[in-house]
Amino acid sequence: MDWTQVFATRIARMKASEIRELLKLLDQPDIISFAGGIPDPKLFPAAAFQDAFAGIFSGSSQNEALQYSVSEGYAPLRRWIAGEMGKLGIPCDIDNILITSGSQQGLDYLGKLFLSPGDTALVGWPTYLGALGAFNAYEPQYDRLQPGGNRSAADYAETAAAKGGAVKFAYMSVDFANPTGETIDRAGRDAVLALADEMNIAVIEDAAYQSLRYDGEAIPPILALEIAQKGSIEACRTIYCGSFSKTLAPGLRVGWVVAAKPVISQLVLMKQAADLHSSTINQMAIARVAETIFDDHVAKLRTVYRSRRDHMLAQLALHMPEGVTWTKPEGGMFIWITLPRGMDGADLLAKSLKTQRVAFVPGRAFHADSSGGNTIRLSFSLADEATIEAGIARLGALLR
Amino acid sequence: MDWTQVFATRIARMKASEIRELLKLLDQPDIISFAGGIPDPKLFPAAAFQDAFAGIFSGSSQNEALQYSVSEGYAPLRRWIAGEMGKLGIPCDIDNILITSGSQQGLDYLGKLFLSPGDTALVGWPTYLGALGAFNAYEPQYDRLQPGGNRSAADYAETAAAKGGAVKFAYMSVDFANPTGETIDRAGRDAVLALADEMNIAVIEDAAYQSLRYDGEAIPPILALEIAQKGSIEACRTIYCGSFSKTLAPGLRVGWVVAAKPVISQLVLMKQAADLHSSTINQMAIARVAETIFDDHVAKLRTVYRSRRDHMLAQLALHMPEGVTWTKPEGGMFIWITLPRGMDGADLLAKSLKTQRVAFVPGRAFHADSSGGNTIRLSFSLADEATIEAGIARLGALLR
Repeated sequence: MDWTQVFATRIARMKASEIRELLKLLDQPDIISFAGGIPDPKLFPAAAFQDAFAGIFSGSSQNEALQYSVSEGYAPLRRWIAGEMGKLGIPCDIDNILITSGSQQGLDYLGKLFLSPGDTALVGWPTYLGALGAFNAYEPQYDRLQPGGNRSAADYAETAAAKGGAVKFAYMSVDFANPTGETIDRAGRDAVLALADEMNIAVIEDAAYQSLRYDGEAIPPILALEIAQKGSIEACRTIYCGSFSKTLAPGLRVGWVVAAKPVISQLVLMKQAADLHSSTINQMAIARVAETIFDDHVAKLRTVYRSRRDHMLAQLALHMPEGVTWTKPEGGMFIWITLPRGMDGADLLAKSLKTQRVAFVPGRAFHADSSGGNTIRLSFSLADEATIEAGIARLGALLR
Repeated sequence: MDWTQVFATRIARMKASEIRELLKLLDQPDIISFAGGIPDPKLFPAAAFQDAFAGIFSGSSQNEALQYSVSEGYAPLRRWIAGEMGKLGIPCDIDNILITSGSQQGLDYLGKLFLSPGDTALVGWPTYLGALGAFNAYEPQYDRLQPGGNRSAADYAETAAAKGGAVKFAYMSVDFANPTGETIDRAGRDAVLALADEMNIAVIEDAAYQSLRYDGEAIPPILALEIAQKGSIEACRTIYCGSFSKTLAPGLRVGWVVAAKPVISQLVLMKQAADLHSSTINQMAIARVAETIFDDHVAKLRTVYRSRRDHMLAQLALHMPEGVTWTKPEGGMFIWITLPRGMDGADLLAKSLKTQRVAFVPGRAFHADSSGGNTIRLSFSLADEATIEAGIARLGALLR
């Protein structure tokens, strides 16, 4: 059977990334990999999860945990999240919250909510690869979001119309973004809001790394800034996507979306149609663990990851040749390296696998326009000090 | 903010169903409800799940359970499923299997895989409401699948072209379908395959209830019949969707799709973009429980549900007035009632909530063309004998 004849047109946009294929080769013991962007499993609060699951089965809640549940999500978990949101300057109630299967699912649903084929999504160059992957299924065009830049709202709108649709939202990862590690400052957040207000579009605020700040002052989420301006979440156009994957554990697939009720109620219908609800038992376990240890555990994560970041930055200063620059993230898991112009990150990785055996992610895939060839992403979340020293020394040798 | 201005066109197809709103009123203690279609939580293998989760945390697998995992799904679970598929006449290997978050997610992904706006899905009148809900997000047209009927392949194709697309697949729930309880016989399965071969379209075989057969001979799945014809799953156009929700527990959200590798590899990319993977820990728990107790547990479920079905059929024979007919399912959870022509199931439910206080699902929502007003769905999965007696007596009084 020739499947391509019956596949939807969107399938042309959903290809295996070359990088993902390349990264499959990295499971070899002599390779030092800074390619992954995943939490260190040795830091998982496994004992707390063990207690949580045991507690669910020892009490009267086991049948509830194994049964179908509402698409909105487990109410006690939504209550806990509402409390946390309040602390961030986002007063809301549980009807402003949808539980998703990771914040990745939030991005997929928001692409589905807003994008008809040909509509435009405003994203950074570079931006989170997984956001582009999620949105691609809905066949959008991309335009470059440059908050505080000199393009007018009318210019964005005309560009989108010329491509056969309308601008629907601006997407940004605000704190220690994947891949750059950079944080949008207060002025940048205000500028995005002002642009979105002028264009009457949504703002998707990806806050996956927000809790992992290692130094510097926290900047209020865009949604908090908008609520401060407009008085209530119901008047706001910003949609906040959160995740437990970087703080508690990704394997349970629990994240959330916070927004005005018309958005949440539409997403609830979407979730009902797409997978009914996220795992009941996992939502209950996450609620128990979050209520018990969240702040203490995140404090512990910050200490460990901060030290790894510091160590990688120090090693980069030691080993990078002239002409190579990098970001100094205040949190998260990533450092973004800009190589001399004309150098290509994918070529460099191919060469590295033959010679120095140090792995990273070439930066082009994070760019909706396929620019960024001379960039690479390093993650410091999984590596101990000795590995960082050895790996960055290898990278230095590779670049010399 | 006027959200409707920025929503995608598909959102017009994703409305709250009136029936779901009506059914929210049913949580009142004096109502006898046959409306739900969910497993009896008293029958969940809770002790086996308790052991499974405890085992995951007592061994060396806890960090794996809490970590990200591959989009394809947990390999030992896929191996167990491949073994079960083999017993059903579907020899396959683990690369023919994708783990999904319930079979509902399989339906969503298959809609996404095949349907561009205006394409046609062939479905039964009636069909599973949740399939229509999942497919609607991709803005299809529907045409009525009548295997063995007298419409030609050319007629289906011309009808679809006139609606602005092409026929992409035929969807059917094959055993004890939701909502009718009916089973497609061998001739019907052969006819669907022959039609699909002639049209060069996919067949989506929804097998959610397959294990719950209470009597009669099992009929091979459509995919098994096709493999017998064509020699290998790789030559087949049938895509089989399975679920643990009716056999082990729905709250963990674990189902699967079995198909030729070009389909599975495309669905894997889709899953990676949409939610990365289904819950790692839940896949591990399901694998442990399935390996330990699956056959024995399903045998126990069959005994209990068979008796409830028998009791409901007996009570219907006792209480239904002339002119009312119903199906005699060989398995599953549902009996489908046809009321005298001109009577309306939704009106009857509204009347029932005021008088007899017995609940059911009006049948119109299961019909893509909004026909079927004189039908209702009863579920026998949740009710004990006394409740069935009292409830069917009330239904009889309502209809008299």
